[in-house]
Amino acid sequence: MSEHPSSPPKGIRSWMRLWVDQIKLLLDSLEIKRTHLVGNSLGGAIALHLLAEAPERIDRVVLMGPAGAPFRLTRELDRIWGFYEDPSKEAMAQMIRWFAYDESFIEDQLDNISKMRFEAAMNPAVRRSYEAMFPQPRQQIVDDLVLPSATLRRIQQQVLLVHGLNDPIVPVETSYYLAQHLPRVKMMIYGQCSHWTQVEHRDSFHSLLLSFFKDKI
Amino acid sequence: MSEHPSSPPKGIRSWMRLWVDQIKLLLDSLEIKRTHLVGNSLGGAIALHLLAEAPERIDRVVLMGPAGAPFRLTRELDRIWGFYEDPSKEAMAQMIRWFAYDESFIEDQLDNISKMRFEAAMNPAVRRSYEAMFPQPRQQIVDDLVLPSATLRRIQQQVLLVHGLNDPIVPVETSYYLAQHLPRVKMMIYGQCSHWTQVEHRDSFHSLLLSFFKDKI
Amino acid sequence: MSEHPSSPPKGIRSWMRLWVDQIKLLLDSLEIKRTHLVGNSLGGAIALHLLAEAPERIDRVVLMGPAGAPFRLTRELDRIWGFYEDPSKEAMAQMIRWFAYDESFIEDQLDNISKMRFEAAMNPAVRRSYEAMFPQPRQQIVDDLVLPSATLRRIQQQVLLVHGLNDPIVPVETSYYLAQHLPRVKMMIYGQCSHWTQVEHRDSFHSLLLSFFKDKI
Amino acid sequence: MSEHPSSPPKGIRSWMRLWVDQIKLLLDSLEIKRTHLVGNSLGGAIALHLLAEAPERIDRVVLMGPAGAPFRLTRELDRIWGFYEDPSKEAMAQMIRWFAYDESFIEDQLDNISKMRFEAAMNPAVRRSYEAMFPQPRQQIVDDLVLPSATLRRIQQQVLLVHGLNDPIVPVETSYYLAQHLPRVKMMIYGQCSHWTQVEHRDSFHSLLLSFFKDKI
Amino acid sequence: MSEHPSSPPKGIRSWMRLWVDQIKLLLDSLEIKRTHLVGNSLGGAIALHLLAEAPERIDRVVLMGPAGAPFRLTRELDRIWGFYEDPSKEAMAQMIRWFAYDESFIEDQLDNISKMRFEAAMNPAVRRSYEAMFPQPRQQIVDDLVLPSATLRRIQQQVLLVHGLNDPIVPVETSYYLAQHLPRVKMMIYGQCSHWTQVEHRDSFHSLLLSFFKDKI
Amino acid sequence: MSEHPSSPPKGIRSWMRLWVDQIKLLLDSLEIKRTHLVGNSLGGAIALHLLAEAPERIDRVVLMGPAGAPFRLTRELDRIWGFYEDPSKEAMAQMIRWFAYDESFIEDQLDNISKMRFEAAMNPAVRRSYEAMFPQPRQQIVDDLVLPSATLRRIQQQVLLVHGLNDPIVPVETSYYLAQHLPRVKMMIYGQCSHWTQVEHRDSFHSLLLSFFKDKI
Amino acid sequence: MSEHPSSPPKGIRSWMRLWVDQIKLLLDSLEIKRTHLVGNSLGGAIALHLLAEAPERIDRVVLMGPAGAPFRLTRELDRIWGFYEDPSKEAMAQMIRWFAYDESFIEDQLDNISKMRFEAAMNPAVRRSYEAMFPQPRQQIVDDLVLPSATLRRIQQQVLLVHGLNDPIVPVETSYYLAQHLPRVKMMIYGQCSHWTQVEHRDSFHSLLLSFFKDKI
Amino acid sequence: MSEHPSSPPKGIRSWMRLWVDQIKLLLDSLEIKRTHLVGNSLGGAIALHLLAEAPERIDRVVLMGPAGAPFRLTRELDRIWGFYEDPSKEAMAQMIRWFAYDESFIEDQLDNISKMRFEAAMNPAVRRSYEAMFPQPRQQIVDDLVLPSATLRRIQQQVLLVHGLNDPIVPVETSYYLAQHLPRVKMMIYGQCSHWTQVEHRDSFHSLLLSFFKDKI
Repeated sequence: MSEHPSSPPKGIRSWMRLWVDQIKLLLDSLEIKRTHLVGNSLGGAIALHLLAEAPERIDRVVLMGPAGAPFRLTRELDRIWGFYEDPSKEAMAQMIRWFAYDESFIEDQLDNISKMRFEAAMNPAVRRSYEAMFPQPRQQIVDDLVLPSATLRRIQQQVLLVHGLNDPIVPVETSYYLAQHLPRVKMMIYGQCSHWTQVEHRDSFHSLLLSFFKDKI
Repeated sequence: MSEHPSSPPKGIRSWMRLWVDQIKLLLDSLEIKRTHLVGNSLGGAIALHLLAEAPERIDRVVLMGPAGAPFRLTRELDRIWGFYEDPSKEAMAQMIRWFAYDESFIEDQLDNISKMRFEAAMNPAVRRSYEAMFPQPRQQIVDDLVLPSATLRRIQQQVLLVHGLNDPIVPVETSYYLAQHLPRVKMMIYGQCSHWTQVEHRDSFHSLLLSFFKDKI
Repeated sequence: MSEHPSSPPKGIRSWMRLWVDQIKLLLDSLEIKRTHLVGNSLGGAIALHLLAEAPERIDRVVLMGPAGAPFRLTRELDRIWGFYEDPSKEAMAQMIRWFAYDESFIEDQLDNISKMRFEAAMNPAVRRSYEAMFPQPRQQIVDDLVLPSATLRRIQQQVLLVHGLNDPIVPVETSYYLAQHLPRVKMMIYGQCSHWTQVEHRDSFHSLLLSFFKDKI
Repeated sequence: MSEHPSSPPKGIRSWMRLWVDQIKLLLDSLEIKRTHLVGNSLGGAIALHLLAEAPERIDRVVLMGPAGAPFRLTRELDRIWGFYEDPSKEAMAQMIRWFAYDESFIEDQLDNISKMRFEAAMNPAVRRSYEAMFPQPRQQIVDDLVLPSATLRRIQQQVLLVHGLNDPIVPVETSYYLAQHLPRVKMMIYGQCSHWTQVEHRDSFHSLLLSFFKDKI
Repeated sequence: MSEHPSSPPKGIRSWMRLWVDQIKLLLDSLEIKRTHLVGNSLGGAIALHLLAEAPERIDRVVLMGPAGAPFRLTRELDRIWGFYEDPSKEAMAQMIRWFAYDESFIEDQLDNISKMRFEAAMNPAVRRSYEAMFPQPRQQIVDDLVLPSATLRRIQQQVLLVHGLNDPIVPVETSYYLAQHLPRVKMMIYGQCSHWTQVEHRDSFHSLLLSFFKDKI
Repeated sequence: MSEHPSSPPKGIRSWMRLWVDQIKLLLDSLEIKRTHLVGNSLGGAIALHLLAEAPERIDRVVLMGPAGAPFRLTRELDRIWGFYEDPSKEAMAQMIRWFAYDESFIEDQLDNISKMRFEAAMNPAVRRSYEAMFPQPRQQIVDDLVLPSATLRRIQQQVLLVHGLNDPIVPVETSYYLAQHLPRVKMMIYGQCSHWTQVEHRDSFHSLLLSFFKDKI
Repeated sequence: MSEHPSSPPKGIRSWMRLWVDQIKLLLDSLEIKRTHLVGNSLGGAIALHLLAEAPERIDRVVLMGPAGAPFRLTRELDRIWGFYEDPSKEAMAQMIRWFAYDESFIEDQLDNISKMRFEAAMNPAVRRSYEAMFPQPRQQIVDDLVLPSATLRRIQQQVLLVHGLNDPIVPVETSYYLAQHLPRVKMMIYGQCSHWTQVEHRDSFHSLLLSFFKDKI
Repeated sequence: MSEHPSSPPKGIRSWMRLWVDQIKLLLDSLEIKRTHLVGNSLGGAIALHLLAEAPERIDRVVLMGPAGAPFRLTRELDRIWGFYEDPSKEAMAQMIRWFAYDESFIEDQLDNISKMRFEAAMNPAVRRSYEAMFPQPRQQIVDDLVLPSATLRRIQQQVLLVHGLNDPIVPVETSYYLAQHLPRVKMMIYGQCSHWTQVEHRDSFHSLLLSFFKDKI
């Protein structure tokens, strides 16, 4: 996904097509027959689509705060996907705050991060792609990412769901829903945790994934 | 809890009083200042009451398929607690089936286990205690076990909830509820799993608890 | 079930125990190893309990307007089970009307039937048994007849559900519920039909059962 | 319906007009005064419209997994009707899987079928018609197919509804709804069955229809 | 209904039996073959039971603020039926206020009326009957008065429902419910009106009934 | 409202403006200071808007099956307002059937009426106006006709609501809603009656209105 | 209310009678014609009953966390009213914690207070009265305290409701309900506040009441 | 906000950006480091956005009938924001009536006010700005004004919410919602009061704000 196409696909389903094909190509070019997969947020939805379409290439899967299940678009996610409607450093700072349950540990770097990210976001190529991915109405995007339940129930891989209990961006009920439909599933929920489980519970998260990939948990 | 009092307490709240006091005495007599705690099912509710009343004695806590939160009495639990209304070896066998999601791995021993358990249950002392614990209407028992939310939100210990996704006895939503009210919580849910997480996912369960008590997860 | 015990069991669950044991004895005494089963209304619940407890004795099963699933006690059923609270020929006539969607075809015999049934009902032995079966509160009876879903999902027999769409006594949703929980199920619903499918759609019903028992439908 | 018009009607209601008129013409040209009717899925909705408009031409009617009642668009149906938004052989294979509850019996031919169907679908005339039938938003299509209840309650024909209990494309509740509104109705529901009742329960289905058309069921 | 039996019937259903029989006797002794009927409040329920049981004796029927349909016991009705739990002149005055939407027109007589009614109520025979009619729990009384819908749909008489829109004792939804189930029904609702339609809208009420009994409305 | 403007207003609210102004002009030109008002269906909504805006011109008001309150667009109304999307004599006949609960009394004239109305409808001027009134999405039309409750509660006129209990076009709940918000209201509901109360209950309707306008009911 | 009767009234409504009468006597003996009133918790319900019965004696009224409206019994209140079912110093301490949102400011005195209160509670006269007030089922007590809405809407006094937003004992929705039904009402809600508004927001509370009684707020 | 830009921003979020920036500039130019803030209706939403973005500039905050929380667009607000769809002096008068619960005290000036406001509204510059702020669909405007809950819970200022209980424009539940999410909040609700708390309860409102800004309440 290194470059931004000058005439980007329109709508999230065409992007999904592109991402899934890119990953398959990547696996081919690296001569990887079968691999574990970790998907975060939107990446969780990509992982699920890949599982449905190329199950023979995938082994165990970890999904963190994943999209791919039906949920009611949160205001936080609406503002994140709609960032370019009214882009500002202040809005960027607000967004970054939402990713953490306890913002104190990023407080002193918040200005720096916001500034850096805002500048990166102002890159025209980035903006062009991003705006093409997330047009209004954004509830439609959430819905287009959903895998039909008749597809979910056929996924045979072991899936580990990881979600922050207080995630205001992708609500924890999304993972509760996936757990109901995936046949071979485990689910780990972290309290006092927002959308960044891997940051707010770093050590536990690291240890959990190691155990899961070694088939110990 | 080695002996059955000849005139047992009446109602689950008096039993709860007794159990909490017994555990405190036990800890005193063993000269244990502070301990980890593992509570299963009804034992989960006991652990929560102990946490509320003697927090200085408890360190980390694991609750498996715990009572202690509000839930609608399931028919399965109603039949289990009401076993003596119409006791039979057949009813015992039905009950044991409910504890496993996939009964095949106990199938060949089911007759033996049912018979043994039925005989044990017919011990008059056991029956006297059990009937005193679980009188009708049994929704009342579930409700009497619940800790007020104003109490739950004051528990400062790390709590790990473990629950089978398909538990027909204590539904998984019970743990979802506790997770919402306990301030420092993690929750692990097992798919294709009924009320016996420690049996149906033995190795994973073992590994998870070790990590948790070592503060690694 | 030919005779009425002079001191009848109390409560529907003790009666259920009795009925299930009687049927097993009957099958033994007739040296029937394995049989098809047809259960109507309350008899449907009995059939389901037998299926759970002695599956090796039962082949294909037909349930007509069956109890055994959770439903909200209808006023009609409450009045039928509570007939002896205020027994009269008029009340008997009202009840008989409820069994048919279109009462016209029994209209001319209604007086006769009501009279006969009323006299039979006034037999003290019948009354004693009946009152012992259906004490207040009657929602409890409906609930006590229910098989836990963890039991229903383990029934391996082919079950055919038959229900009148306009049944005011046991609502058709009861069969919709059973269909959701029984793994190997077919369901036939008759329009313009009350609780007596076998009377109001006699020929179709007859033909359907023949086909089902011959494994043609 | 042999040919695809070069400028196809727009929207499902104009198509419906066309289909109903075509069938009436067909009956005229074949000099059929009155006929039984079998309608599958979308065809079920067509049959119902024909019943409302030309009741004198129709005798008994069978509807399998029919549209024509209100239901919430399933994701599966949304993807099927929106196939051309992102057509691929992989998507075709996913869709075919949804039609069966147990895909094992088509597993070995799935590749062949998907390929054949995909090629057929890529025929520009087919695509043109199909896209003209099913434009976004597709909930609108479901709604436009619905017959007002004031029309349904006037249909005097015997109607047999047939539906798979696990149909993820047109949910079984659709038939439950039609049964509530059609005055002369029977309904047969198959367990462990998806959208293809006629395939997954072939023999039973065949036998059932014969009996129904002979007025035996 | 002139006298109060020294050992009154227990429970509302036995009273209902008594009242219906009394009315039939009355009609017989007066040699009335067939009559119009006006039933108010509890009297509405009596009228409906009479309609079900002796339809040949009844012509047109007016029901004012009638019981006989399911509704959630209002606090006002609970206090009225439970008056003797804590009888006082003050409580009597409160109750009388509830019967009018605008109490101003009875304000100056309220003291007199309360006193008179309170004294009458303290008559031991009245009290004995009343307490026997309305024991706790009173939701049960409301429920026992309900006619099963399978009975309501068979009533062939013309029924006129009259109800105050702001009735806090028997809510107007009760008449909405009856209107749904009685086949030949008209319903007149008065705004700014409590339980006493015949008092608060006297002239209109009078005129309406005349027209109805003359078959003009 | 005698002529159809060649460039008609767009949207129902502009039409409402036009209608209200036309009626005020009409009253002026006829030198009517104050008048009773009868409004049917859409005309009911017009009457309510007139009441809000020119209360000094209006005396007593009768609303029959009125719009003007919030309700969920029925399919029947959607098809009526969308008639020109797919106009046909058959569709016209269907629509006419909906206006009567019991179509038998118009059955023999149905063909004639349908034909006449269809021809009238095909008049281009009529069609132009009609299509301009009722564009999609039609739920919006229902909503735009609604009077805010803060306006309804200020209407001081006596209003009589008349509605058919089985109206499939404007549901009876619409009048229940208006009754809740209009301070001085009476409501007459007819059983076995669709949208044409004045046709299906002609004599009663006539008599009721006379009484109402004479202040007798 | 200085003494505890040796045979106390049974049930909350008899107590209510007693309390209201005592207050009226008190006002008489002190020769107070008309007074402001402040009612806290259960005292709020007493104040409302007094308002309904002796409105001429009362001026402005303040209700803090009042009962008297319908609400679902909270577990906290159930445990408080049921204290004597299982009395202990530990249970007393738990209860006291619930009265404060932030327990830190009573933390150091908690032991003392709990001990004192526990000893006071063990006074047999206190216990006798208390147990007579709050028998099971306690939802019934909440319900018996409720004033019918037809009574509430007639209260003409200015009422100021004061409630803690986080009150776990009497939920804030209770005051929201009263505000909807009392015609002349103001309501002040405190954030970060439990059942003791007068303690946790002492200065603001003091200032607010002064202003209210001086008719300044 | 003195002038109306000739090409106004499109959509409420761009306007919000503009307003927030203008206020910050204003504070700068007046050299105000930190200030109390009072926001009314839409102004309440502006105040909340300012709080989120420039918390260091704001001290205590009063919000009256504020937007900024999710609520279902009321018809009244829809008509106010959509005034220019069908502008008239009559519509203006209707709108003004909604702002008061008891319109009597503005009755005699209503004509004058309506006329003045209507003329002001017909100023093309005003209209241009207003129409640019409030385009259809207006539910979207309400939603775009909402602050994500993850932002609200981080606001550290003392906020006083003031709302009329009978506000038909911004419903009181909006303030109930904000109270749940703002950590340091008080809320004052006025009975018999519409959207203009500061007008209908002028003296109390004045006194309340003084006390609040002096930290006395």
